[in-house]
Amino acid sequence: MIKPRTPPGVMELLPRDQIAFQQMLDTIRRNFERFGFLPIETPVFELSEVLLTKSGGETERQVYFVQSTGALSNAAESGSAVPELALRFDLTVPLARYVAEHEHELSFPFRRYQMQRVYRGERAQRGRFREFYQCDIDVIGKDALSVRYDAELPAVIHAVFSELAIGKFTIQLNNRRLMRGFFESLGVRDPQLQTGVLREVDKLDKRGAEHVRETLAGEGFSLAADVVARILDFVQVRSSGHDDALARLAALGQGSDELSRGVAELREVLDLVKSLGVPETHYALNFSIARGLDYYTGTVYETTLDDFPQIGSICSGGRYENLASHYTKSKLPGVGISIGLTRLFWQLREAGLVDTAESSVDVLVSQMDEERLPTYLAIASELRAGGLNVEVQLEPRKLARQFQYADRAGIRFVVIVGEDEEARGVVSVKDLRRAEQFEVARPDLARTLRVELEQARAMRVRMEGDSA
Amino acid sequence: MIKPRTPPGVMELLPRDQIAFQQMLDTIRRNFERFGFLPIETPVFELSEVLLTKSGGETERQVYFVQSTGALSNAAESGSAVPELALRFDLTVPLARYVAEHEHELSFPFRRYQMQRVYRGERAQRGRFREFYQCDIDVIGKDALSVRYDAELPAVIHAVFSELAIGKFTIQLNNRRLMRGFFESLGVRDPQLQTGVLREVDKLDKRGAEHVRETLAGEGFSLAADVVARILDFVQVRSSGHDDALARLAALGQGSDELSRGVAELREVLDLVKSLGVPETHYALNFSIARGLDYYTGTVYETTLDDFPQIGSICSGGRYENLASHYTKSKLPGVGISIGLTRLFWQLREAGLVDTAESSVDVLVSQMDEERLPTYLAIASELRAGGLNVEVQLEPRKLARQFQYADRAGIRFVVIVGEDEEARGVVSVKDLRRAEQFEVARPDLARTLRVELEQARAMRVRMEGDSA
Repeated sequence: MIKPRTPPGVMELLPRDQIAFQQMLDTIRRNFERFGFLPIETPVFELSEVLLTKSGGETERQVYFVQSTGALSNAAESGSAVPELALRFDLTVPLARYVAEHEHELSFPFRRYQMQRVYRGERAQRGRFREFYQCDIDVIGKDALSVRYDAELPAVIHAVFSELAIGKFTIQLNNRRLMRGFFESLGVRDPQLQTGVLREVDKLDKRGAEHVRETLAGEGFSLAADVVARILDFVQVRSSGHDDALARLAALGQGSDELSRGVAELREVLDLVKSLGVPETHYALNFSIARGLDYYTGTVYETTLDDFPQIGSICSGGRYENLASHYTKSKLPGVGISIGLTRLFWQLREAGLVDTAESSVDVLVSQMDEERLPTYLAIASELRAGGLNVEVQLEPRKLARQFQYADRAGIRFVVIVGEDEEARGVVSVKDLRRAEQFEVARPDLARTLRVELEQARAMRVRMEGDSA
Repeated sequence: MIKPRTPPGVMELLPRDQIAFQQMLDTIRRNFERFGFLPIETPVFELSEVLLTKSGGETERQVYFVQSTGALSNAAESGSAVPELALRFDLTVPLARYVAEHEHELSFPFRRYQMQRVYRGERAQRGRFREFYQCDIDVIGKDALSVRYDAELPAVIHAVFSELAIGKFTIQLNNRRLMRGFFESLGVRDPQLQTGVLREVDKLDKRGAEHVRETLAGEGFSLAADVVARILDFVQVRSSGHDDALARLAALGQGSDELSRGVAELREVLDLVKSLGVPETHYALNFSIARGLDYYTGTVYETTLDDFPQIGSICSGGRYENLASHYTKSKLPGVGISIGLTRLFWQLREAGLVDTAESSVDVLVSQMDEERLPTYLAIASELRAGGLNVEVQLEPRKLARQFQYADRAGIRFVVIVGEDEEARGVVSVKDLRRAEQFEVARPDLARTLRVELEQARAMRVRMEGDSA
């Protein structure tokens, strides 16, 4: 007998949690599609040679390699080094490979969404996952891509998290060009040095202002005290409302071309975000947002839950210069965001914010008399044709236990038909949510239950909208 | 520069095909849920020790092993044999592990669906995939599971393939107990010998009756000529309609207990399938269906497309005695079916049966005047709030090229607003499907387009229903 267990570092859910997780995936996908993004899926493994174009980075040390049984024994004999296949560690490298491979079959700007699992050999740790979902959207241009596309993504983020209804959130915006321009205006001109400063500044929320001040004034950077002071003032900027954001941009002046360009980009993004109907309570400038990756060159985004800042960013991304330089000579600038849903779900569940009250099953057709089973099956078929998810009690069991099962499983309605109901052409329905029972003519059953369920759903969406 | 390419043996789709594929996945999932099945997902890799409980089978030779970078170098040093992790090669072994692991947290009968990719190191060959989707449902009982559950699965198959609308299909039913009982009544009593005969009979469609006759009469089996003749008569039974199926079962008589029991099971399944509303044109007895796996013990299913028999079975499964004997002492009988969607999609596309006409994007809001961009974005937001999938033309481009883009992308509606329209509070809509243009008041736009799209969808479902 082998002990049944999963490998460490994966999140496997029981059905009730899986239903809640699936609803989140569906909500994200629906909103990605609302904004005209097209689906793609890539294989879980890529050729190692294609996937691992950069050598020796942190990510590469975390890669999982894949070998078939045959390849495994060959490798053991030949002592060959790197296996042919490796599991994807994000969705960006596969996207770069996909766009470069299918460049001549795609329309640009190419708007794609992708929601698949990725793999990283992380150290095993609570809340760290080796397998997790990423839900990504990107817009890829050929040669050029207007900054206007940077404004759509906050609108997508707003739509997704409003509907997920996990509490108030703020989309934090910044622009790396603006930051570099600001550093330049202070005389910090070396791009390497700028990158170093950006990395330190990005730690502001985690380490605090004093730590960042000491680091920038210390040996590695050796910046003058007044320069450090101005940087620290700058990165503590947070806007409050649309006009305040514009005023803070205007206050930056025109210290350098790069600064002016960054300011202009961010202003255009803010104005279009407003045109797209995102409420100004839901976005703000935050000049400390730099994103760790040097990959980003313009707009950057992070999204935080106002009441759960300790969760950190729940949706991040930004603008990059060139997606696929390892695979094609074409210049492919883009902008994208990513939601790490597995970790987010885990954190929400820890915080008690995941609602697992409801089953995906709407109705249990109970079994009162065994000989009436054909009737029960026919009723189930009628309900399914009417768009309801239905389970039938196929084996005899005490009625009380059938109710108990439905209640525990989160099934809202139990349909009951005995001799009397069948003779009168009606069915009894027990509504377990409202704890009440009613009768309805059999031809009206599907419509009646569907109306009840749709009202409950509409009410829930309204309440969640109010709270967000 | 590295040549961007996928590993051999995977199916990667362009967005139009991916949309069609995603619609099939959604249809399958919706119908699985209609019948009260609950979702689960398992990790892509399992512990090798847990996954590979049987030693040395065909499947095991096709397994992909997974190693993190660290584990890889350790293994190279220590020369250790089997890596710790392996990719799942089906969804049945992970289900067995899941049910055994979570036995005390699940309600039985446990009705689960699972739609994920599985991995097999197949020989590279056209139409053979190393990564492919399986869409599975199973009902697992504890200690016992009524044969009534066997009747639900044909109803699910009927619902799924009617809605997929890929042509006429027939669900072929048989029962391995009935077959063993029949062999017994002919004096073929040894279970090993019966298993061998079942395997040969299963090849009837592929190899033909003469090949099977020769094999059974030949050295390996040495069955008497009259026994072989009666077996061949038996396995050629195909019923036509419900009453004919019952008559053919009645004609088998009561040659042995096992035969009687198999007949009774199959009769009950047929009667409940009828009660569930499956039209009798869509199911039939086929006594040559044995399924290769010895795993199955009772009811077995295969489903074939009437006009494309060469595609083989598009949905198969059956009843088994005990799901998880390697992981638990509990007896867990079950019944299940599986759709290999990647291969099916590939075959349907080869046969020209995949409809990629329609984008997931419903509307393109075109750009006539750049200064009206805030209006275009506001219209897009209104349409999205009304449930439509909308792309906005963000960069200036000739209107003719915007129409061309929408047409090629399969986007049905293009919304046009210039100075005149804006002044009158209307929008022009070009319907590319019907090649006509109309005007509508802006507040009515979302509702008008949604009604058009819903009518088109309803019409398509009706037409597909008629053809199936």
